[in-house]
Amino acid sequence: MKSRKLSPLFFNTIVCFFLISMTAFMIATAALPGMATASENQVLDKAIASYPEALFQGKSQDDIRKELPVSGAYRDETTPIEEEVTVIIDGNPATTSIVRYLTDMEIFQYRGDVLWTCIAAFLVFLMQAGFAMVEAGFTRAKNAVNIMMKNIMDFCMGTIAFLAVGFHIMFAGPGESLFFLGTTGATQWGFAFWLFQCVFAATTATIVSGGVAERTKFTGYLAYSFVICAFIYPTFGSWAWGSLLDGQGWLEGVLGVGFYDFAGSTVVHSIGGWLALAGAIVIGPRVGKFDLNGKPRAIPGHNLPFAVIGGFLLWLGWFGFNPGSTTTFDGNLARIAVMTNIAGAAGGIAAMAAVWFSFKKPDVGMTVNGFLAGMVAICSAVDVVNIWGSLIIGAVAGILVVYSVIFIERILKIDDPVGCISVHGVCGAWGTLAYAFFGVESFSSTVLMAQLIGIGVGFAWAFGTGMVLFIAIKYTIGLRATREEEVTGLDVSEHGNEAYCGFPIDSHA
Amino acid sequence: MKSRKLSPLFFNTIVCFFLISMTAFMIATAALPGMATASENQVLDKAIASYPEALFQGKSQDDIRKELPVSGAYRDETTPIEEEVTVIIDGNPATTSIVRYLTDMEIFQYRGDVLWTCIAAFLVFLMQAGFAMVEAGFTRAKNAVNIMMKNIMDFCMGTIAFLAVGFHIMFAGPGESLFFLGTTGATQWGFAFWLFQCVFAATTATIVSGGVAERTKFTGYLAYSFVICAFIYPTFGSWAWGSLLDGQGWLEGVLGVGFYDFAGSTVVHSIGGWLALAGAIVIGPRVGKFDLNGKPRAIPGHNLPFAVIGGFLLWLGWFGFNPGSTTTFDGNLARIAVMTNIAGAAGGIAAMAAVWFSFKKPDVGMTVNGFLAGMVAICSAVDVVNIWGSLIIGAVAGILVVYSVIFIERILKIDDPVGCISVHGVCGAWGTLAYAFFGVESFSSTVLMAQLIGIGVGFAWAFGTGMVLFIAIKYTIGLRATREEEVTGLDVSEHGNEAYCGFPIDSHA
Amino acid sequence: MKSRKLSPLFFNTIVCFFLISMTAFMIATAALPGMATASENQVLDKAIASYPEALFQGKSQDDIRKELPVSGAYRDETTPIEEEVTVIIDGNPATTSIVRYLTDMEIFQYRGDVLWTCIAAFLVFLMQAGFAMVEAGFTRAKNAVNIMMKNIMDFCMGTIAFLAVGFHIMFAGPGESLFFLGTTGATQWGFAFWLFQCVFAATTATIVSGGVAERTKFTGYLAYSFVICAFIYPTFGSWAWGSLLDGQGWLEGVLGVGFYDFAGSTVVHSIGGWLALAGAIVIGPRVGKFDLNGKPRAIPGHNLPFAVIGGFLLWLGWFGFNPGSTTTFDGNLARIAVMTNIAGAAGGIAAMAAVWFSFKKPDVGMTVNGFLAGMVAICSAVDVVNIWGSLIIGAVAGILVVYSVIFIERILKIDDPVGCISVHGVCGAWGTLAYAFFGVESFSSTVLMAQLIGIGVGFAWAFGTGMVLFIAIKYTIGLRATREEEVTGLDVSEHGNEAYCGFPIDSHA
Repeated sequence: MKSRKLSPLFFNTIVCFFLISMTAFMIATAALPGMATASENQVLDKAIASYPEALFQGKSQDDIRKELPVSGAYRDETTPIEEEVTVIIDGNPATTSIVRYLTDMEIFQYRGDVLWTCIAAFLVFLMQAGFAMVEAGFTRAKNAVNIMMKNIMDFCMGTIAFLAVGFHIMFAGPGESLFFLGTTGATQWGFAFWLFQCVFAATTATIVSGGVAERTKFTGYLAYSFVICAFIYPTFGSWAWGSLLDGQGWLEGVLGVGFYDFAGSTVVHSIGGWLALAGAIVIGPRVGKFDLNGKPRAIPGHNLPFAVIGGFLLWLGWFGFNPGSTTTFDGNLARIAVMTNIAGAAGGIAAMAAVWFSFKKPDVGMTVNGFLAGMVAICSAVDVVNIWGSLIIGAVAGILVVYSVIFIERILKIDDPVGCISVHGVCGAWGTLAYAFFGVESFSSTVLMAQLIGIGVGFAWAFGTGMVLFIAIKYTIGLRATREEEVTGLDVSEHGNEAYCGFPIDSHA
Repeated sequence: MKSRKLSPLFFNTIVCFFLISMTAFMIATAALPGMATASENQVLDKAIASYPEALFQGKSQDDIRKELPVSGAYRDETTPIEEEVTVIIDGNPATTSIVRYLTDMEIFQYRGDVLWTCIAAFLVFLMQAGFAMVEAGFTRAKNAVNIMMKNIMDFCMGTIAFLAVGFHIMFAGPGESLFFLGTTGATQWGFAFWLFQCVFAATTATIVSGGVAERTKFTGYLAYSFVICAFIYPTFGSWAWGSLLDGQGWLEGVLGVGFYDFAGSTVVHSIGGWLALAGAIVIGPRVGKFDLNGKPRAIPGHNLPFAVIGGFLLWLGWFGFNPGSTTTFDGNLARIAVMTNIAGAAGGIAAMAAVWFSFKKPDVGMTVNGFLAGMVAICSAVDVVNIWGSLIIGAVAGILVVYSVIFIERILKIDDPVGCISVHGVCGAWGTLAYAFFGVESFSSTVLMAQLIGIGVGFAWAFGTGMVLFIAIKYTIGLRATREEEVTGLDVSEHGNEAYCGFPIDSHA
Repeated sequence: MKSRKLSPLFFNTIVCFFLISMTAFMIATAALPGMATASENQVLDKAIASYPEALFQGKSQDDIRKELPVSGAYRDETTPIEEEVTVIIDGNPATTSIVRYLTDMEIFQYRGDVLWTCIAAFLVFLMQAGFAMVEAGFTRAKNAVNIMMKNIMDFCMGTIAFLAVGFHIMFAGPGESLFFLGTTGATQWGFAFWLFQCVFAATTATIVSGGVAERTKFTGYLAYSFVICAFIYPTFGSWAWGSLLDGQGWLEGVLGVGFYDFAGSTVVHSIGGWLALAGAIVIGPRVGKFDLNGKPRAIPGHNLPFAVIGGFLLWLGWFGFNPGSTTTFDGNLARIAVMTNIAGAAGGIAAMAAVWFSFKKPDVGMTVNGFLAGMVAICSAVDVVNIWGSLIIGAVAGILVVYSVIFIERILKIDDPVGCISVHGVCGAWGTLAYAFFGVESFSSTVLMAQLIGIGVGFAWAFGTGMVLFIAIKYTIGLRATREEEVTGLDVSEHGNEAYCGFPIDSHA
């Protein structure tokens, strides 16, 4: 609260916004021109230039180029073509067409990769809407606008942060400086890959917002959201997924077998969940959540149908999240989509059964968290698991999430309004661990250990940096709304908005 | 009610859940390993092994295999390749590449099939959210959570039921036992096809929930939902669509011309609608729906904007439902999408006009049901109809649905809270019939008769098994909530949830 | 009001509906058979028939045809194939396969074009739901059903209007009469292109509904919506985009350099915005919007979370709107998607900062309008702009929209309930202008002038025809609801519906 007086709202905002914008602009200038200027034809020209002249039998490179299609683009532009050209260019009158054929095939593969990766990214983008609905629906009407604004802003800020800083940290090549140097290259596939990674980064940030909902200052939210997308997520990402372009993350080689996390049970979900844990601890529980004896009070969500539809949108988004993680037009998406679906279904049923067993009623909130937990858990091994594995990973996650929510609330006395620590943190860890049991041909303790290292490093990194981040915000620009603001509701106090008005008084019920 | 005392809630649930899970697991073990283990390369190897040795001119099969791409997969893996190889392998130095070209082309086709079928399945999945919104919006606030839970669970249970039982019934090959033996083969396309069929099965189950809304016991719902996805839908599906894989449904050959239902006006929609009819009859009307003279009372929906957005999501889902029924990357989706769109538009306008004419106001509920009815009706002939046909099929469905809703409520005294019997049952039958008039080059009474047989068999099967099913549930685990539960609202009595709270009292209206 | 007595509701509706239907049917008969009947094979046959006989070396055209795949289709069916055949048909035993290869490649390209264009159209369709949610959420509960009905109907009516009239105006070839003659040809790509254009036309109509919300007669709405989709939008579209098929719009050649509007900052958004301006002027402000001194009163939206989710759906729809405007499977979508995303993010942040600066609170409505404005503005140059350009175009649009909303309300005293004149009209113009600064290699005053001509012509056309249209409706079937209807709410007075009922009285707030 003190810090709030030192840094008035208005000043903070302007400073924050200018700082971010300027960083973004400076970095964009330095790092991204290559991404925006090189054309497919330049890549093609380079490939042609690499052929031995002898192969062309008197034709100039320009002649060959004219016979090639107008736009040709390759992901890996040298080796395969050279080899094939060696075999084929032999004076046969069909030659020029065959050369064209070869390039066409690769162009088609390339275009398919780009198309599918983009469509998957669009689906993952929709998860922002899904999270906004779930979080708003599970909390109170007086904070619904605030939650919406947070979800808008973590995507807007996340886009800028990931463009300016995050992507470069996550996928910087070994020969590059750690910061600020793009290595995507200039192709359409580079853009598609960037977009897919960007929506992943924003997902991590948006997970956190649920854990600190209904009591966080909006300026504090903007600050932590930027830092997560710019630094915290991409750093861990570079350790686990750096090799997706040309780097090599150290976790990928750990213990020889490497840490395995196909679509992000740990990289996205646990990181988000542990950050939410740090945030929830630093900011403390909502006013009235625990009574004087520390007994938790239920604070029901204000719009459960809204939350459920958000859950369905998240399910749809997961069909981009997991199958899209192939980032390749290779047909492998189908099996991944089926396994994702089975794990979600198993998680939903198991959570419903568990809450029904424990509390005598099939609660809707736990059921939604159950199918989300099932899909969180399957991310890690979704490309290698079989139907048995999917059923078990999903069902265990569904049961786990119910008791984890209870444990965090009743034993740890931490106030997580939407259960995101359990759904994403705990079940993300479970899924990552489960890879060692359901994702490999035969059980290996080294694999298990590698997974445990990944889980442990993920926890240490996210929880550790999260504590530092949230404490730093608390003592500078301020993390928590005042008591009056919180009681009034953040919608009015922070945004000057009321989420709802004009609803008729109940006369039909 | 009596039955309810014999089988307490808690016991039922646990028994039900374990029974389902164990069945699923047992069956998955028996039937699905093949689906999960065979790789694309195995399919390719089989194709190579089928070539006459003479064609290889001294090269071993292994040599040929090495020249082929790493992953090659074929839907129909023997005939076409063999033929082409006969022509091509001729000592020409370009040979190996040409062989590669042939396989690449087929791989691309294959990958395109998989991608499009999966994307279409994702869109159809979204229909679950659409149905949930339409059904909740058109009913009362006190049952909104219950409707959400039903829609979550019919997809979760449907996934498990279709995985364990339904798919095997629907697509079992002739040489296989009727039950429990998978015949999809092991390819990615098999998974894509499974997912597409699974979301169709779940759609059938979800249609039913609207007809029995606001008064059904949740355990009864779980039971019937499982049975529909596991047995009732797949059995009729095997008669009409069994040949989509390698079976041959008897309706497909009926009268020589065969019963035609491209995307499921009957197979999905009418089956769902007639099951809803059976359910609505067995369970009886909601408390207060009819007065002592049998005059119906309007029970307005509590959230019409929510329902309309659900209708839009269903429209979007239909762009997967109909165009996706090609399950092929062949470009035919465009025309199907256009015809679907025209029928929906015509249905919406026609229903609005009809309700405006009859009741002096353009009612939003009927308009939504109108465009849904138009798209239900066009499913059957959507791939062969022209623009005229689409306009007429859609417009007639839009008018039909208005008067069918009135007829069912006022004359038959059946309480169908959201009109699903009319939208899906009646208009599905109309669309199936319309194929005989708008889907063939010249009118044939045999075609008409075949369609009538399909419609009749569909009605007899779905209504008959539906009556048996709902009566069986009624006298075992119980079908209907008690009067107190119903008056209180199922949200509180069944789930311990309130859908909404904290909405401000109207002060701006 | 007078006109209203002359033309009672009922009569109007029936006349309106029959007029529209009959026009549609007549035109469909005249113009569309070609679209519905010609098959891909016919196109292929035409291509084969165009080869010089000599090339076939004794084979008949029928023989060649048999060697070709069953379905072959080409966008541009003559030149490329002819050339390639000249080279290849040479008696080589591999010939027939090579011929097949060539056609396969083109078939794949074709199918990719069709698939991507359709998927993009599906995403743009979802914008109807997005607009419905944004407009309903930003206005009052008593008009929510009316807004939903308008959005349903502008898509339904728009589909019929564009089918019957609009498409033919927009893409009529030079040798065809201006009206009513389809030139799409008969291919699947023709259908895909039609669908994509149709959802664009409906978007234009739906933009207008926000500007005249809460006070427009429903019959008046139906009439103007039809006219916009049938005449106003397609006419300007033919000037700017006619060459997308085989015409050539005069704006495309203006000043030699041509007016450039890649995805419709002007063609769709400004046209919609200026039509809304005309409508808002003719219909006048809502009751109570301005006090006796002309001071505006805030009329808060009734459901802001609903509006925000609508904004997210619009964002998703934009991933179809801009990247889909390639209408080609060429991989160029990725960069366009990234630029769209960056502009949206920059617009959201900038608008939030601007409203925060001016009004001391980060208002959610302005933030949503900000990201929409960013994406409106980027449409024009999205395929050629770089990251810098996207950031600036989006950020300027975000700031512009805030002050434009204030200017229109406070200075011009025009009542635009959702800000659509500012978002689509003003920011559409800004984005079109920005092409001259960020979309070309080096600044050229001719390019700037061409853009200004396009912007000016767009304004003159849309505002001019809009004034005529709305005044004509006002004095014939009536444009504005009566004062009592407006005060009661259009839901009850026009539709006999209440959007909401049964919401519990606040007891938890």
